[in-house]
Amino acid sequence: MAPGDIMELSARNVLKGTVESVTEGMVDAEVVVKLPGGETIVSVITKGSAERLGLKKGKEVHAVIKASNVIIATE
Amino acid sequence: MAPGDIMELSARNVLKGTVESVTEGMVDAEVVVKLPGGETIVSVITKGSAERLGLKKGKEVHAVIKASNVIIATE
Amino acid sequence: MAPGDIMELSARNVLKGTVESVTEGMVDAEVVVKLPGGETIVSVITKGSAERLGLKKGKEVHAVIKASNVIIATE
Amino acid sequence: MAPGDIMELSARNVLKGTVESVTEGMVDAEVVVKLPGGETIVSVITKGSAERLGLKKGKEVHAVIKASNVIIATE
Amino acid sequence: MAPGDIMELSARNVLKGTVESVTEGMVDAEVVVKLPGGETIVSVITKGSAERLGLKKGKEVHAVIKASNVIIATE
Amino acid sequence: MAPGDIMELSARNVLKGTVESVTEGMVDAEVVVKLPGGETIVSVITKGSAERLGLKKGKEVHAVIKASNVIIATE
Repeated sequence: MAPGDIMELSARNVLKGTVESVTEGMVDAEVVVKLPGGETIVSVITKGSAERLGLKKGKEVHAVIKASNVIIATE
Repeated sequence: MAPGDIMELSARNVLKGTVESVTEGMVDAEVVVKLPGGETIVSVITKGSAERLGLKKGKEVHAVIKASNVIIATE
Repeated sequence: MAPGDIMELSARNVLKGTVESVTEGMVDAEVVVKLPGGETIVSVITKGSAERLGLKKGKEVHAVIKASNVIIATE
Repeated sequence: MAPGDIMELSARNVLKGTVESVTEGMVDAEVVVKLPGGETIVSVITKGSAERLGLKKGKEVHAVIKASNVIIATE
Repeated sequence: MAPGDIMELSARNVLKGTVESVTEGMVDAEVVVKLPGGETIVSVITKGSAERLGLKKGKEVHAVIKASNVIIATE
Repeated sequence: MAPGDIMELSARNVLKGTVESVTEGMVDAEVVVKLPGGETIVSVITKGSAERLGLKKGKEVHAVIKASNVIIATE
């Protein structure tokens, strides 16, 4: 998919933030994204994707989450 | 699982918010959660869970998301 | 997220196709996408997303799948 | 999230068991949980979570699975 | 995929049980599976799949769960 | 589960292809599957499953994807 191809996603949750850290394993990479309010979102993607997207501390990204993957917990 | 049984979850993302709306279908329910910063998180759970948890507008909840379910997008 | 904001996704699987059908429930919608080779991909998203994206028969779309959601089966 | 914060989860499947083994990679950890009936459940979580929860052989845990992540197979 | 095509799955968790109930919505169906030890597993699949597999009370099935979809919780 | 046990899966997406490569980490393995039309599907499974299934370049496999894990994107 060439850059610019995608305009909109069905995924209901798209949170804008800044990459705080990237930790690479042999297959996967853990990416920590800081939201404007100070909370962090942790994502595990493939190392290949982390490199293709050029993820590194300070880069602006979106964390995308499908609604069916969100569990609700009550206190 | 009785109330109070769980202390901690492996899921890396736990976002506290307030239920904004609950829309029930025959099997599933869509739950919209408002975060303190004003953003919303949308979750689809079973109708049975929405009723068991007593979800309704104003209730305080957590949105729980496993790191492997978070996609990263760049602009 | 405004249209045009996203350039690239970490998701490793992005398959281009054409919407064959959309079946709406009260919360979810089932979307069948036909790939160029004739195979079909079935997706379940929220009804809200199906309407927001204007999905209908003939519309060109991409089916996006995170690598961690692909199971391998052998014969 | 502080210990004790969560009382109930929307996730429909919560299976109690005992950690049988933990295998750590650089990003992920594989956790094998033995159920009372002798069956095992395998989970992959981040290494960070395995360490934060103090997972080790013999520890009592729950395996939590959202209903939308369960596939049905017939013989 | 024709019956009999699949011999093995990469999914690490395959639990044998008996269908206890099937509740159909317009898009999805909730399937409750009783395990031999008395516990139940709840699955949400498409209504189309529930009908194609001929799911009904008493039918023997397997609940299949990918390891990356299992969260660990501690007390 | 013994070979031959499974006849049919509720998962709506089963794509036949050939293993192009297997990259093993300490916990996970990345498997690239080439479809007949030339597209590739990338899967991340546990290293244990990759070895149990005997995955290697040239082996015929199916990529299995639950409909609720497919996001739709529009251009």
